[in-house]
Amino acid sequence: MEDLSPRHGGSMFVGLVGASQVLGLLSVVLTGVWMGHYQGGFAWDGSAQEFNLHPLCMVLGLVFLQGDAILVYRVFRNEAKRNVKLLHGIIHLLALIISIVGVVAVFDFHRANQIPDVYSLHSWLGLATLVLFCLQWVMGLMFFLFPVASSWVRAMYLPVHVFCGLALLVMAISTSLLGISEKLLFSIMSTYSQFAPEGVLANTLGILLVFYGGLLCHLVTREEYKRPPNPEEESLSVHFKTLAEGGSPASP
Amino acid sequence: MEDLSPRHGGSMFVGLVGASQVLGLLSVVLTGVWMGHYQGGFAWDGSAQEFNLHPLCMVLGLVFLQGDAILVYRVFRNEAKRNVKLLHGIIHLLALIISIVGVVAVFDFHRANQIPDVYSLHSWLGLATLVLFCLQWVMGLMFFLFPVASSWVRAMYLPVHVFCGLALLVMAISTSLLGISEKLLFSIMSTYSQFAPEGVLANTLGILLVFYGGLLCHLVTREEYKRPPNPEEESLSVHFKTLAEGGSPASP
Repeated sequence: MEDLSPRHGGSMFVGLVGASQVLGLLSVVLTGVWMGHYQGGFAWDGSAQEFNLHPLCMVLGLVFLQGDAILVYRVFRNEAKRNVKLLHGIIHLLALIISIVGVVAVFDFHRANQIPDVYSLHSWLGLATLVLFCLQWVMGLMFFLFPVASSWVRAMYLPVHVFCGLALLVMAISTSLLGISEKLLFSIMSTYSQFAPEGVLANTLGILLVFYGGLLCHLVTREEYKRPPNPEEESLSVHFKTLAEGGSPASP
Repeated sequence: MEDLSPRHGGSMFVGLVGASQVLGLLSVVLTGVWMGHYQGGFAWDGSAQEFNLHPLCMVLGLVFLQGDAILVYRVFRNEAKRNVKLLHGIIHLLALIISIVGVVAVFDFHRANQIPDVYSLHSWLGLATLVLFCLQWVMGLMFFLFPVASSWVRAMYLPVHVFCGLALLVMAISTSLLGISEKLLFSIMSTYSQFAPEGVLANTLGILLVFYGGLLCHLVTREEYKRPPNPEEESLSVHFKTLAEGGSPASP
């Protein structure tokens, strides 16, 4: 059984990672089709076409890229941790930049059309997610890429960082669902209840995002897909163990 | 350090469980105030007052009670597992009954007012959540309360059951957020953007639900809050271990 388990886990893992990428990319494509085909395309001129960049940037940045930045720790679980950390930080930075462009687009559209800002549940949850995402990125940078904290503080913070990362992905997806629903009610309220193709497409996008989030959470939390221990992690564990046993951790 | 840890974890645990109950109850109360004060109260006559039972039943059943049914495994982690299982199943059954009443209320309201069913993202996600919730309850009953499956199948299914339970709670909360946003756009679209008190109250309800979900996920996934091993669990582990090592598990 032990001989079979890793291989079975391996092929299942590859299949699930592949499925997550199909779901994530399909979500980005469907958002593009929705905004490009049904909502009149893209521009940067204060018009509704500028608003259309908002959903595309958020689904690409704060959902797909955030998810993939998390997933690199599982996909490259046998690579040097330093490189994986760097990739994790870079993809998150890209996600952050694209998300900020998406948020600027909607504020700019509101300003040009004198629409009030930040009154909806979508905007409350979305802004909370973006602010916490920035905080999480800075904390990750300080704790893990340029570690200013001692080893045992890092070891204490690691599970918090992992939990908050998944929570932020779930919050980003929930915010996207709210955005999809809001946009449909603003633009096709009269035909939405008659199963207009645009409504069905956008609902499908919402369901795909839920599957993407569920699959990501499964891949990240499943024990058998986690990184095998390596010397760096061992060293961290030793510090943590020392602390838990009442000793004081040695300097890194 | 080992002497301090459990006590520290204990007081933190009690505080977090207390906070989760405050958040959960406050969410139910805010839903009641929203529907009772701003939306005209409750009835069972096909009117908008019948619809008002829908949010109240769903937040009480599919969010608060579902969350608490999960939480009993942490709150009563030192009690006999059989009793905790029974409590877990009973609270879930109560959650299921209340949720079904809530769903019947909205379908009945739609029928009486000739409003189409199941066209929105809220309804798609909500129905998926309820169907999967029923399935999860039946599976839990078969696998754990009246175990028809062998010990090793149960041991294999346990992490799936735990993961799906948390995923269903998150899906129920996401569906609630969509319902809050939809209801606000249907009923106060013109004043929502001017920060009408009803909109602020409903947005606050949404944020409380997110905090409730986040806290529940934290309490359930945190290693130090999990059940300490007991003889029954040990027996299950032995069966699983035997299987993993290539032997065949003995009958329960």
